[in-house]
Amino acid sequence: MTNVVIPLYEGVTPLDFTGPYQLLYALEGMNIKLAALGTNEIVADGITFGGLSDLDRIEACDVLLVPGGLGCIAALETPQFLAALQRLALGATYVTSVCTGSLILAAAGLLDKRRAACHWAFRELLATFGAIPDPGRIVRDGNRITGGGVVTGIDFALSLIADLRGEEAAQRAQLLVEYAPNPPFEAGTPETAPKPVLEAVNGRLSSAIAEAERRIAIVAERLRTVR
Amino acid sequence: MTNVVIPLYEGVTPLDFTGPYQLLYALEGMNIKLAALGTNEIVADGITFGGLSDLDRIEACDVLLVPGGLGCIAALETPQFLAALQRLALGATYVTSVCTGSLILAAAGLLDKRRAACHWAFRELLATFGAIPDPGRIVRDGNRITGGGVVTGIDFALSLIADLRGEEAAQRAQLLVEYAPNPPFEAGTPETAPKPVLEAVNGRLSSAIAEAERRIAIVAERLRTVR
Repeated sequence: MTNVVIPLYEGVTPLDFTGPYQLLYALEGMNIKLAALGTNEIVADGITFGGLSDLDRIEACDVLLVPGGLGCIAALETPQFLAALQRLALGATYVTSVCTGSLILAAAGLLDKRRAACHWAFRELLATFGAIPDPGRIVRDGNRITGGGVVTGIDFALSLIADLRGEEAAQRAQLLVEYAPNPPFEAGTPETAPKPVLEAVNGRLSSAIAEAERRIAIVAERLRTVR
Repeated sequence: MTNVVIPLYEGVTPLDFTGPYQLLYALEGMNIKLAALGTNEIVADGITFGGLSDLDRIEACDVLLVPGGLGCIAALETPQFLAALQRLALGATYVTSVCTGSLILAAAGLLDKRRAACHWAFRELLATFGAIPDPGRIVRDGNRITGGGVVTGIDFALSLIADLRGEEAAQRAQLLVEYAPNPPFEAGTPETAPKPVLEAVNGRLSSAIAEAERRIAIVAERLRTVR
């Protein structure tokens, strides 16, 4: 049995974890727990996720998978949340994240001097916590596997499954969910998106990025004093 | 405001709708409702979705988006569920589905003599209800837009967004969720998957397909008598 724990929090991005969840769920012998601190229900982008496990009561896991979302900032400002991740990471075979989930891992001190992926717009913030921002879509450094933004989690999951159960298991999961992508547009990265598209998205995210920078600097300073 | 209704049921596949949901949610002016019949909570592949709207109380929508999953058979055996879809489809600008959601639309008489996509393993069952199975990943026939299996829903959603709001809006959503797929394996379709992988997945699905065939034949016969 492979035990996977996915810690959720208010403002997590649903697709960051429902993508990987669906692929991992396709395997035999998986025990995947969605968990949260002090609540069994989380609202994320308008979707209510219920029946969550109590993060503090989960003793151990083989895979820790931290999803991202704009709520990651509040999550990494919560010492009890970081402590739960540190505790679970100690015994985990793989410590992983999707999207801005890597900022949470980094704030928990779990990516010190390690290369890590992140959503493209928030990637450089990793350095504030001593991690090394990497533009890769799936970045491996020791037993840390981090994926890029949101949908990147699907490729990340296939790669993780290949590690856990071999390439054929990953291919079976891929066929089951008919993952043969053929996007009608080529706008998925800042490098390929048409300039007006990039400018619009940067404009939309600019206040969120500025706010994240400000709050992350405070957390990083507090952690430097403590550690 | 664009009103989207996503009818859920026990045994729906989470990624069938969380993929499209996340992309649609990236747009301004969207009102996306997850709904169900007679319950505000659905458990799907181990994930509890709460806070659902009452499907029977939703008056109208612009986009009806029916996800698939193994529970689609029980859903299409439920006359009240089909009636709700027929009612909403009447006023909808787009009547759509992902994966085996097209079997439900077909059972509701909403794909008569129309081409439609479906999960590859269940596609031929569309013909039992008078729809025309189409191997395309995104199939358009009039205002019906149907997507193939599970992850195909992401490409489907980009295509739908281009219709609703133009190509640039679709590209902005694509960049926001960093959708630049690069699967580590080429096993997402029966045509590209290695033979042992296809055989294993066919083996795993064979009883579900046989069961679906049996039950769908009964529903189709009953509908022929009624209509």
